Amino acid sequence: MKQRCAARLALGCGLALGLSAGVWAEEPIQPVEAVKPANPALVELGKQLYFDRRLSKSGAISCNSCHDLALGGVDNLPSSIGDHWQQGPINAPTVFNSSMFLAQFWDGRAKDLKEQAGGPIANPREMASSHTLAVATLRTIPGYRVAFKKAYGSDTIDIDRVTGAIAAFEQTLVTPDSRFDRYLRGDKQAISAEEKAGYELFKSAGCVACHNGPAVGGRSFQKMGLVAPYVTSNPSQGRYDVTKNEADRMVFKVPSLRNIELTYPYFHDGGAKTLSQAVQTMGRLQLGRNFSADENARIVAFLKTLTGKTPDITLPHLPPSSDATPAPQPFDH
Amino acid sequence: MKQRCAARLALGCGLALGLSAGVWAEEPIQPVEAVKPANPALVELGKQLYFDRRLSKSGAISCNSCHDLALGGVDNLPSSIGDHWQQGPINAPTVFNSSMFLAQFWDGRAKDLKEQAGGPIANPREMASSHTLAVATLRTIPGYRVAFKKAYGSDTIDIDRVTGAIAAFEQTLVTPDSRFDRYLRGDKQAISAEEKAGYELFKSAGCVACHNGPAVGGRSFQKMGLVAPYVTSNPSQGRYDVTKNEADRMVFKVPSLRNIELTYPYFHDGGAKTLSQAVQTMGRLQLGRNFSADENARIVAFLKTLTGKTPDITLPHLPPSSDATPAPQPFDH
Repeated sequence: MKQRCAARLALGCGLALGLSAGVWAEEPIQPVEAVKPANPALVELGKQLYFDRRLSKSGAISCNSCHDLALGGVDNLPSSIGDHWQQGPINAPTVFNSSMFLAQFWDGRAKDLKEQAGGPIANPREMASSHTLAVATLRTIPGYRVAFKKAYGSDTIDIDRVTGAIAAFEQTLVTPDSRFDRYLRGDKQAISAEEKAGYELFKSAGCVACHNGPAVGGRSFQKMGLVAPYVTSNPSQGRYDVTKNEADRMVFKVPSLRNIELTYPYFHDGGAKTLSQAVQTMGRLQLGRNFSADENARIVAFLKTLTGKTPDITLPHLPPSSDATPAPQPFDH
Repeated sequence: MKQRCAARLALGCGLALGLSAGVWAEEPIQPVEAVKPANPALVELGKQLYFDRRLSKSGAISCNSCHDLALGGVDNLPSSIGDHWQQGPINAPTVFNSSMFLAQFWDGRAKDLKEQAGGPIANPREMASSHTLAVATLRTIPGYRVAFKKAYGSDTIDIDRVTGAIAAFEQTLVTPDSRFDRYLRGDKQAISAEEKAGYELFKSAGCVACHNGPAVGGRSFQKMGLVAPYVTSNPSQGRYDVTKNEADRMVFKVPSLRNIELTYPYFHDGGAKTLSQAVQTMGRLQLGRNFSADENARIVAFLKTLTGKTPDITLPHLPPSSDATPAPQPFDH
């Protein structure tokens, strides 16, 4: 008993009054756990590739262009800018905590981060390269030969290894230690009374039906516009575009609410500029509920406690091209 | 005498055989010195602004877009991509060691880094914002209020402070400790016999007439095409565009050769894809000399010893916009 009290004391006074360690097992939301990479050389290679514009045809667009790690892992635009300033079809989802999602892209068409990473490289509206050109480019860069050897044991460069390394890096991009996670772990002072009330409302109103788990979302596909249809000029039909099943029309992967304070604008079309607007629309369309201004503010206050510690990323020192490296084509048509 | 020998021993065996400490005073090139910032909070603010896309109208272009610190402080494109994918008029010069230049831009139209930093923000072909909009945007971001207060003592945000902070950050972007600098400091083994021969040729052929000083350039304006005219479709007339003085036609700031291995393609129009091509063209047009293949290779080998230690940059955690922040305009015309 004495030992138990000492442990409680060490964890802070919050414990004795409210949640105790492990109690989050009974909560619909769990803390984000830090990640220790099994293969640091693979992660380092993935980081290089993540920041390398040479994976695009123009030589100007990298993964980080749309999933900026200095921002919330997004570009904060309604939809992204692709090759030749083409308007992207959908809002860029955050890369932070994305390893926790049941699938990748809003419509879930990629089963995991590795499969996802190959998409934008070869998408003519995004990076506009091809897997063949991207791999051929990397093969001419001596520094990458060395890095692939370090990461994989041999200096073979193929698209499988490229996307595998990017995914390995992305798996490290988690954001633990938010105020809400500290609360879940027993520090009752970590969030204010208003924020706590917002969490209670978030649960009782039914938001947690979809926004749950460690990522507070990302675990299921759900219809956007359950009670009333979501009106948008965005042409995406969500899962339907993948399955061609009528029941999947406007069914999207539930976005994570982790760091939602940083990932504006909201929804697959970027249609909600502020968190307050997004909460109001969700209440109306998904729950048939018109939150009062107070209720809205409370939920927004709670959502801001989900901002975690985004990782400290040291920019890679990218290896230079060689004379044999294909020239980028920024202004060709 | 005994003490002197001990000191020599500590600096490595190279000393006894050749250059001794300080001897670079007699050389046309001097080592790059590391920089210790006087005001770390100002540098940190400058770093945030350097990476912040919200200084552009589209919300997509930051200083780092064209002067990528993961590459050689450049974008490695013949000319940069501006707002709405407009083709820039000139090759983006490196930001590394740029504080050592006598003026900024190829035509020297800005007297220092602070003046330079304001240019691209308001240039309709580059970031396409205005100083008014950029400042108004920053003022709505609470995290910037805090950062400006830390850096400047008050939370006033104006363009003078914005560009001052960016310049303060850029002044830290030096690349000391290249192999050539280690050679200059007395470590004779730091470069090979071929690289040394390349340096001797670089001096005897007359390259050092323009490429000298710690930045190996950046100290004077010189005519591009001294012996024979430089043929290019690029419309820039260099200093002439600033002074309207006929004698200044095709007179450009001499670029730094520091990290030249990383800053391809070369010349103000990005017309030379490889270092070997650049050396050959320079020999022909500036010195009236046709370097043999061996001579060319030797000079290229020397130039690659000028690659220094680019700084380890930790990405900033940019403060989020508020509901009052003007929305970016990526697709408006």
